[in-house]
Amino acid sequence: MEEPTTNHYREGQEGEERDPESNNTLQSPLLLKRNRTLSTNHLAIIGTKVSHIESLDYEINENDLFKHDWRSRSREQVLQYVFMKWILALIVGLLTGVIASLINLAIENIAGFKLLAVAKFIKEERNFEGFLYFTGANLALTAFASILVVCFAPTAAGPGIPEIKAYLNGVDTPNMYGASTLIVKIFGSIGAVSAGLDLGKEGPLVHIGACLASLLGQGGPDNYRVKWRWMRYFNNDRDRRDLITCGAASGVCAAFRSPIGGVLFALEEVATWWRSALLWRTFFSTAVVVVVLRAFMEYCGSGDCGLFGQGGLIMFDVSSVTVTYHAMDLLPVVIIGVIGGVLGSLYNYLLHKVLRVYNLINEKGRGHKLLLSLAVSIFTSVCLYCLPFFAHCSPCDPSLPDSACPTNGRTGNFKQFNCPAGYYNDLASLLHTTNDDAVRNIFSTSTPTEFHPVSLLVFFGVYCILGLITFGIAVPSGLFLPIILMGSAYGRLLGMAMGPYTRIDQGLFSVLGAASLMAGSMRMTVSLCVIFLELTNNLLLLPITMLVLLISKTVGDAFNPSIYEIILHLKGLPFLDANPEPWMRTLTVAELADAKSPVITLCGVEKVSRIVEVLQNTTHNGFPVVDQGTVPPIGLPDGASELHGIILRAHLVAVLRKKWFLKEKRRTEDWEVRKVFTSIDLAERGFKIDEVLVTKDEMEMYVDLHPLTNTTPFTVLESLSVAKAMVLFRSVGLRHMLIVPKYQLTGVSPVVGILTRQDLLAHNILNAFPDIKSKERGKKGKQITLEVSQQQNGNISSHEA
Amino acid sequence: MEEPTTNHYREGQEGEERDPESNNTLQSPLLLKRNRTLSTNHLAIIGTKVSHIESLDYEINENDLFKHDWRSRSREQVLQYVFMKWILALIVGLLTGVIASLINLAIENIAGFKLLAVAKFIKEERNFEGFLYFTGANLALTAFASILVVCFAPTAAGPGIPEIKAYLNGVDTPNMYGASTLIVKIFGSIGAVSAGLDLGKEGPLVHIGACLASLLGQGGPDNYRVKWRWMRYFNNDRDRRDLITCGAASGVCAAFRSPIGGVLFALEEVATWWRSALLWRTFFSTAVVVVVLRAFMEYCGSGDCGLFGQGGLIMFDVSSVTVTYHAMDLLPVVIIGVIGGVLGSLYNYLLHKVLRVYNLINEKGRGHKLLLSLAVSIFTSVCLYCLPFFAHCSPCDPSLPDSACPTNGRTGNFKQFNCPAGYYNDLASLLHTTNDDAVRNIFSTSTPTEFHPVSLLVFFGVYCILGLITFGIAVPSGLFLPIILMGSAYGRLLGMAMGPYTRIDQGLFSVLGAASLMAGSMRMTVSLCVIFLELTNNLLLLPITMLVLLISKTVGDAFNPSIYEIILHLKGLPFLDANPEPWMRTLTVAELADAKSPVITLCGVEKVSRIVEVLQNTTHNGFPVVDQGTVPPIGLPDGASELHGIILRAHLVAVLRKKWFLKEKRRTEDWEVRKVFTSIDLAERGFKIDEVLVTKDEMEMYVDLHPLTNTTPFTVLESLSVAKAMVLFRSVGLRHMLIVPKYQLTGVSPVVGILTRQDLLAHNILNAFPDIKSKERGKKGKQITLEVSQQQNGNISSHEA
Repeated sequence: MEEPTTNHYREGQEGEERDPESNNTLQSPLLLKRNRTLSTNHLAIIGTKVSHIESLDYEINENDLFKHDWRSRSREQVLQYVFMKWILALIVGLLTGVIASLINLAIENIAGFKLLAVAKFIKEERNFEGFLYFTGANLALTAFASILVVCFAPTAAGPGIPEIKAYLNGVDTPNMYGASTLIVKIFGSIGAVSAGLDLGKEGPLVHIGACLASLLGQGGPDNYRVKWRWMRYFNNDRDRRDLITCGAASGVCAAFRSPIGGVLFALEEVATWWRSALLWRTFFSTAVVVVVLRAFMEYCGSGDCGLFGQGGLIMFDVSSVTVTYHAMDLLPVVIIGVIGGVLGSLYNYLLHKVLRVYNLINEKGRGHKLLLSLAVSIFTSVCLYCLPFFAHCSPCDPSLPDSACPTNGRTGNFKQFNCPAGYYNDLASLLHTTNDDAVRNIFSTSTPTEFHPVSLLVFFGVYCILGLITFGIAVPSGLFLPIILMGSAYGRLLGMAMGPYTRIDQGLFSVLGAASLMAGSMRMTVSLCVIFLELTNNLLLLPITMLVLLISKTVGDAFNPSIYEIILHLKGLPFLDANPEPWMRTLTVAELADAKSPVITLCGVEKVSRIVEVLQNTTHNGFPVVDQGTVPPIGLPDGASELHGIILRAHLVAVLRKKWFLKEKRRTEDWEVRKVFTSIDLAERGFKIDEVLVTKDEMEMYVDLHPLTNTTPFTVLESLSVAKAMVLFRSVGLRHMLIVPKYQLTGVSPVVGILTRQDLLAHNILNAFPDIKSKERGKKGKQITLEVSQQQNGNISSHEA
Repeated sequence: MEEPTTNHYREGQEGEERDPESNNTLQSPLLLKRNRTLSTNHLAIIGTKVSHIESLDYEINENDLFKHDWRSRSREQVLQYVFMKWILALIVGLLTGVIASLINLAIENIAGFKLLAVAKFIKEERNFEGFLYFTGANLALTAFASILVVCFAPTAAGPGIPEIKAYLNGVDTPNMYGASTLIVKIFGSIGAVSAGLDLGKEGPLVHIGACLASLLGQGGPDNYRVKWRWMRYFNNDRDRRDLITCGAASGVCAAFRSPIGGVLFALEEVATWWRSALLWRTFFSTAVVVVVLRAFMEYCGSGDCGLFGQGGLIMFDVSSVTVTYHAMDLLPVVIIGVIGGVLGSLYNYLLHKVLRVYNLINEKGRGHKLLLSLAVSIFTSVCLYCLPFFAHCSPCDPSLPDSACPTNGRTGNFKQFNCPAGYYNDLASLLHTTNDDAVRNIFSTSTPTEFHPVSLLVFFGVYCILGLITFGIAVPSGLFLPIILMGSAYGRLLGMAMGPYTRIDQGLFSVLGAASLMAGSMRMTVSLCVIFLELTNNLLLLPITMLVLLISKTVGDAFNPSIYEIILHLKGLPFLDANPEPWMRTLTVAELADAKSPVITLCGVEKVSRIVEVLQNTTHNGFPVVDQGTVPPIGLPDGASELHGIILRAHLVAVLRKKWFLKEKRRTEDWEVRKVFTSIDLAERGFKIDEVLVTKDEMEMYVDLHPLTNTTPFTVLESLSVAKAMVLFRSVGLRHMLIVPKYQLTGVSPVVGILTRQDLLAHNILNAFPDIKSKERGKKGKQITLEVSQQQNGNISSHEA
């Protein structure tokens, strides 16, 4: 055993981080006018350095082994596979439903007991003790959630939706779907939401669904996988992608009890590829989730679940309200939409700034992350506890029954708080309660005089601040609820202001406000519309909701991209957009390849030492296999070179690990490779070249790469425009794309270059071609908003993009 | 002027129809073991021979002119384009909504007056006169619709949905979206539905929406186009595709008053490609439709619309029903689903047989088509009029108000018909009414004793027969309503049978039965679920509907493909499926290309005579442009051949028409072509080579094809599997795909072959490769159900497939 290759390659590249995906990185000395940014520096916003982002292999690797396996696959095995697909979709739905129910149960009980105790303190006028109790409990819960996240699973922080979106686009974020992430996300979410922080469990539920799906697909946690025969077909990125889509849809469904909304959310916001078959399976998963939730709520309806009453799942049932709106009511609706769009994009803008500041804090280490979370918790507790003391007590509406107003329990719309009997404190109804209940209270219909405008204004202001400072801390946090809280308050305020001019109920204004702010910030339309439809249970609201969403999204789009896109860029995830930039039409892939160093190819029968050298000195994940001087088709002279295909790094490492070496330089027969490898072996990944030991003798031996080479790579002609290449790359779901020459000439290499995801990102191309960049910057076109805006912010892009 | 080329090429191919798409058709003499079918014989089921099916150019043709146009497009023009897109979506929604409302108004009034008159005859016991009146009126209305269709627009027959599906897949059916089709569809639909035939206006409304969209996109009818400057950007297949998607969604929305259902229908059932941006625009169109419909109904609610009461738009509002179902109610739901699936696939099977018989009749000429329609009309009238006389009169429920039972008017659930006062005829309530009202009556809840089981059984039987024999006649007809009628009857019957064991209302059983039969026949899930949700206005039904739909679809899929797929195959439309067949993985594109005659290429600077010859003797639509002996890249010897790109037939014809000829063989400068052509000229199509006159002198001149060649064609390596090629072809939306060699050798042609839609159809490949065909037939795998089943039916496939 000895270290076989010299290190001089490595030294030459020491200073520069390399793109793990690209075979030939953008580093031609001739064109080195660019500053490399995106591809190297993966900075996650909650401070965890995402170490090594890889692309996923969604393409089917059609090598000889696969083809043999495919031919020999019996009808029974195909049925097994189809059956397992559905069983997995069923289990994903079942587990997501059960876990969502248990999370709700835990939150309602923990938060409920906390709030009941506080109410008791206040009734006894032991206000300071109450404050200490409230703040202390919140601090402990926050600390619990934050320590879990910081110590065990940094990837569990935040909502997780951007990472899922990136995964389904073909970008693998490591440790994102592991067992530890799942467990921390569940318990962290319970802690954080119970702590009264301004965050929701909706985003985390989506992530939980995706984690469940991924773990199920691979047969369990990394170290304890079930090696069941039926499961082996699922150990590939394609099937995992489908499962994670199901999981994400189930999560949304569990969060909002909205099965169709869940499917549409997955379709509109999360997924990059979509097939009709997937629609159908996703729908099945969400149907299962709904059945589980319904059964659970029926069971708890009888009072067996402690303080978990009818609540938990947000469900703002306004079906009893008769919606009467006429042409003259259109104006307020339009106004809501416009303001929602402006506020939503403003929120995106400010959150972006806050997250960048938080990055600097979080980067300093675990202690800083924890302190930041605790500071936010204390600030939240102070706001929530103290502000209602400044509100006036309002007399109860005598038409209400005594039990309805004032209430002292955990839920209820008219909290007594510090008021005398017969009076209620409207601000306490909103602040001294769980977030879900706050939303339900603010959505309440036919109660036009319940809230004082000043109280609503205070509530709105507080939640604007909390919504900005809470999202970036190191706990599992969703974005939906903070935005709904802000939006509902602003909607109700607007409703009050418009009161004399419209017949729309204030509760509806509140719902519309929430919808408009979500559309203004998240830029979803159809899925959001369906979610609101299923939440409010009132179909008559549909046309008006559609109008508001359309206006808000349009207004928001005029200012900045959606919040998810902003987070994706902040995290440095190489997300491939659906639409190519206009300037990509005038750039060919050959020009792009020229800007990179020459492609590294392997021979069909390659020396072991060369393979080891290439693997050690590059981080590329795919190498074209080119045969020189093969026998050409009949009737033509010798000297042809042949592009045989592309081989993956993982498969090269597998060859070295199994030591499938040949003494002489020859091509092998079919049976030889099948004796050593199965297609299941090749599906295994995660081994590093550094872990492989090759002796000096073995170094001189040969490997026949032909049977392991994917002989059906996707290729593009060198004259293809980058725009079309990008469309192809994204629509088919590629990892590598080979560029073939348009010339036919002996001596020309049959592969001109290789393109990967990083090469097709607008931001990277612009950096490699300063001419285009400066021209585009001059134009300030709408299409390049984000790239340009980031670059104009100075050298921030080199930190974060 | 003279006919320049000899005809000997043509003679050689006279006997055989050629595939207009393929450059090199599958006709290698060596491999001629196949019988060519699909690509040549386009038999429409309503008898109109679909003359010449072309593929659409969804790919962006990046030639020099386009690139120049693209570069010079100002920001203002881009904004114009975006603005027009939205304006067009708005107008599509508006017009679809208005036309749908007017159709409803017309039908309700015509059918209403007819039914009132008949009721009067019966009340006066002038039964035979009533029969004559009823049959005569129906016959006249059917004749009106049928004559319109037969004489003016044969493509207006049937629902049109399969053709729209094919269009969005990339197949152009001629005359499908013209002004005459639109007008005939509108008036034909009014006639056919008023005539009491067992068909709906839902399918036609989808087609009407698509026609409107297509006409708007091209600026008006073919002969009277608006040449507005703002419209010129829309004269391409890509933008028309998007508009037609909007139109189809608007149509569904107008039919069911279901905006989200409309969007989902377009997504799930109709569209092949989908983009997030499209979701958003489609949603906008359907929102507009709903607003129009709502406004119209509000206006008519005051009674200004004649007999158009609250009806017209189907709307089965069961929101008042409290849905109480428990675990024990799951069993009947599962049974409904299973039976629905079986019945649905049986319906598909039988309809397939009936349509094939109808084909033979319709092929005989216009007279036969007309006679068939009239015969069906008479049979329908006899059934509808006479059967209620055999039903018993039932006494009215005394708890009902006198005005509700019995009714004598046009609508109403308890028709008096021939019964004495205080009694009603339940079968007349279902048969002597419009189809929409029949559905509403049968869906009625909380009326468990209203219908006698025998009456329902008779109704079910009659509509099974009518549903099978009516669809194929030469009038605009939708499939939704016949299936809903059958399904609701069977559901209610099942509900009666299960009465003692379940607490689910019979009306709900009826709704579930309709849903299950639709899922069993049309195999939609999410969209159907949303449509039913929006129809019934009851969210509590959602989980139960989902379950039924999932079961029915699964059961149905086990037997045969969806009804739309069956019709697509019957019509011979080359629809490209989403999933490649398993055996396609083992076949390479090179093998496929070998089975075809060699590809015809053109030189970069080509002689006029050669172009004329090629155009006259082939029907191909794309020709690769190859430069021989171009100057290769620096450092390499001479003699390279270069693949410059692909040129479309339409552009070659344009060159000949404009006579853009060169005296000497030279390459032109950029400005030369721009003096003669604009990219708008190139977008014009429909000119034939036969219409072009070229003199003998001109024949000896040259044309520089470089500036008109699409230099960025999509290419595949010859070793690519057919499966991957098909995925690429479909995902990117191609028309031609060039095959490049994997060898790099002087003298090898840089293009090995060319693949088109027809080459990638499983059916055509199987015919060209009898080995695979016999092997697959042996397997009888589920994946090849349709192809195999058709081939096993003897030589039917050569007629229809």
